[in-house]
Amino acid sequence: MGPRDKQGFGMNHESPLLFTARWVLGPEGVIENGCVHIAGGRILAVCPREDVPASLMEKQPGTEHRDLGEALILPGLVNAHCHAPMTLFRGAADDMELLPWLERRIWPLEAELTREITFLGTMLACAEMAAAGITCFADMYVWSNETARAVHDVGLRAVLSEGLLGFPTRSYGSVEESLALTRSFMEEYAAHPRISFAPAPHTAFTSTEEQLVQSYALSKELDSPWLIHAAETASENSRVLEMHGQRTIPYLDSLGCLGERAVLVHAVDLTPEEVEIIAARGAKIVHCPRSNWKLASGMAPVHALGAAGVTMALGTDGAASNNSLDILGEMRAAALGAKIRQMDPTALPAAEVLAMATRNGAAALRLPGSGMLKPGQPADLCVLNFAGPHLQPCHDPLSHAVYAAQGSDVCLTMVDGRIVYDHGAFPTLDYPALLEAGHEVQAHMRKVLDRKGRQER
Amino acid sequence: MGPRDKQGFGMNHESPLLFTARWVLGPEGVIENGCVHIAGGRILAVCPREDVPASLMEKQPGTEHRDLGEALILPGLVNAHCHAPMTLFRGAADDMELLPWLERRIWPLEAELTREITFLGTMLACAEMAAAGITCFADMYVWSNETARAVHDVGLRAVLSEGLLGFPTRSYGSVEESLALTRSFMEEYAAHPRISFAPAPHTAFTSTEEQLVQSYALSKELDSPWLIHAAETASENSRVLEMHGQRTIPYLDSLGCLGERAVLVHAVDLTPEEVEIIAARGAKIVHCPRSNWKLASGMAPVHALGAAGVTMALGTDGAASNNSLDILGEMRAAALGAKIRQMDPTALPAAEVLAMATRNGAAALRLPGSGMLKPGQPADLCVLNFAGPHLQPCHDPLSHAVYAAQGSDVCLTMVDGRIVYDHGAFPTLDYPALLEAGHEVQAHMRKVLDRKGRQER
Repeated sequence: MGPRDKQGFGMNHESPLLFTARWVLGPEGVIENGCVHIAGGRILAVCPREDVPASLMEKQPGTEHRDLGEALILPGLVNAHCHAPMTLFRGAADDMELLPWLERRIWPLEAELTREITFLGTMLACAEMAAAGITCFADMYVWSNETARAVHDVGLRAVLSEGLLGFPTRSYGSVEESLALTRSFMEEYAAHPRISFAPAPHTAFTSTEEQLVQSYALSKELDSPWLIHAAETASENSRVLEMHGQRTIPYLDSLGCLGERAVLVHAVDLTPEEVEIIAARGAKIVHCPRSNWKLASGMAPVHALGAAGVTMALGTDGAASNNSLDILGEMRAAALGAKIRQMDPTALPAAEVLAMATRNGAAALRLPGSGMLKPGQPADLCVLNFAGPHLQPCHDPLSHAVYAAQGSDVCLTMVDGRIVYDHGAFPTLDYPALLEAGHEVQAHMRKVLDRKGRQER
Repeated sequence: MGPRDKQGFGMNHESPLLFTARWVLGPEGVIENGCVHIAGGRILAVCPREDVPASLMEKQPGTEHRDLGEALILPGLVNAHCHAPMTLFRGAADDMELLPWLERRIWPLEAELTREITFLGTMLACAEMAAAGITCFADMYVWSNETARAVHDVGLRAVLSEGLLGFPTRSYGSVEESLALTRSFMEEYAAHPRISFAPAPHTAFTSTEEQLVQSYALSKELDSPWLIHAAETASENSRVLEMHGQRTIPYLDSLGCLGERAVLVHAVDLTPEEVEIIAARGAKIVHCPRSNWKLASGMAPVHALGAAGVTMALGTDGAASNNSLDILGEMRAAALGAKIRQMDPTALPAAEVLAMATRNGAAALRLPGSGMLKPGQPADLCVLNFAGPHLQPCHDPLSHAVYAAQGSDVCLTMVDGRIVYDHGAFPTLDYPALLEAGHEVQAHMRKVLDRKGRQER
């Protein structure tokens, strides 16, 4: 795929639209009996229903009105860390130690990936995220231009990256090539309305010093965030200390990589001093609670990071270690996890965790237009349907969003003014064909795992 | 409501039914392309689809066949601890310390309860549980005969109880009356096909010694489990130590209340010696992870309890502190919580947590017929629909049930051969009328909380 201009990427906005609902989360809080007016892919107004001036409607002739009833309109959810193609490995390996997990399961499956399968895995991930109200995600994997192709087709917003490793991968043969490839993807997608690329060293111990330093420079030159798995486990810090004489955070800091562009994914094994360094440098973190717990990596010091003023986003990580791409579920886990880690029921209240899942995610990914329902911003939103028995009665819709809703309560998702999920339907993809293709790949992978199992016996 | 005979409680079995599905969890594991044959409220056969002998179908003329497609038929889920009427308080108070939570929110709301509102709250809870695949639950609250009335109407299975407190409640005026009331409910429901009552002291510090000892004797006399909140927090143990010179577990043991009938709810703050005592006496525990974390009570030593051989069930607790009555969500939380508490990704694997949510729950509640899909047992089951994008692809249906499914993936729930939830419909209740009544009570409660808020300013 060659470079494309803005038109070439397909701006696809529908006719002006007025959504009304029992609740709308505006920039100042919940609006009861609110509305969101949308045209040209942007938000025109967010206000109480009776405040939509007729003149505004007149200025947008042909505005369609959709009343969503007992529902809450939220800013689109931001999944600030994912490995979308790994959706194909969901449930293929649970309850295992890291090394057998990789050696017996993940690596044999990854050896089967082709460009087409990588694309398919991302399509499945995009369908799952669209259905769960996620309008924007950050991703790191191989063949990330295949990921981009799927995201383009489905219509989500994304910050994508090719994981930078100090050894050859399927995407590149050398460190130099890894950096050149990142630059070329960043330039190719510079004009895309929804997709951008960012440099993303894999970790401080699997990426080279050259990759760390040069990729950070690249993020400055081309104005992007810089993504890295950092301080995920105590054993990572031991490895980095052994290799570089310092733990991950001071090591990255010593290289000048810990600026405001840095997005530190996981941020679990941190000393109080490291929390202060992160805060002082303006680096951001992505909290991935369910992945961290399932892999027994540890519980991130969310309370301390928040108290230090660090911008915290939420991520699912890949479906191989979560096993869901569901930010609503991650919100609840983050809130409960913070309380139990601090032994304090007031830790990480609902409003803060909702900010992590929306505007903080957008801020970390340097997408200042996303994460809030505000006039002038791109129309990225999701709608929670409150009809289910598990949401009765409703004293506080934000409490329900964090502590009671499920991903499947999302009934509508819109990105850039375009509906990508609508009450079980996926207007931008062929869902039955996608399921069928997923079944075929799964049947193939099952044979691979069965063969591997026989060899081990 | 006076005593009723078995017929009077309304045996309501539908015509014989053959369910087929991609997967069925039988007693020996997952059956691919399996079936469950049901008649007279009992399971006739659980086997591969091709093994249903025609003769079996002939013996049950009029057997209806329903193919559930890409779905997993599971034993009905057991919610081994709940306070169903508190569903009305869902989301009315989060992120608060215990005392202000009680004083400013829960107690003022509880003061508004009437018998009719208690019944309504239970109806809402039953709808929620039916829709989440829960076929059986244990409950503790006031006016528990109102709870029984709702459970009877909706058609769930339940072990109910009147919380025994050392002071007057709305249900009784004295300790003697509390015990007499428990006995009368136990006798009244002795012949009910789905509902039974059990004695349930509230805690070792809010119930009197007389209530503890005499209620345990009652559970022996009338053959029931004996339910108690035990070792929920360190502060509970401090209180009990102060009052009785021993912590909760040794104190209950010294009273002879720690036998095989004892169901210790929460079991969070335990010493290794207390774990051994629980195991030696054959007492059971109910793990309520999301309530424990939200209230910052602590993380139960599930790994140690399991290693000691203690039967562990799962519970949601009430919706005021969870905020869901969703055992699928609790399964996932339990598995992740055990891993992070032990810092061991192999702790509490999927099969064990699924046993907690099904046959262990039934065993704890002394319902040996429930919790497994086996010929001769009551037809209590739920069906997980695997059509959603968050369940693609499927390498292992049990992994998905524990680590990826949501409560709302349940598409059908059957109790005692009667369908109580079916793809969004509730055959045994008027759902729109129930929602409307819930809205009305919520509007009233909102006024109470607003008035309370104004008084505090």
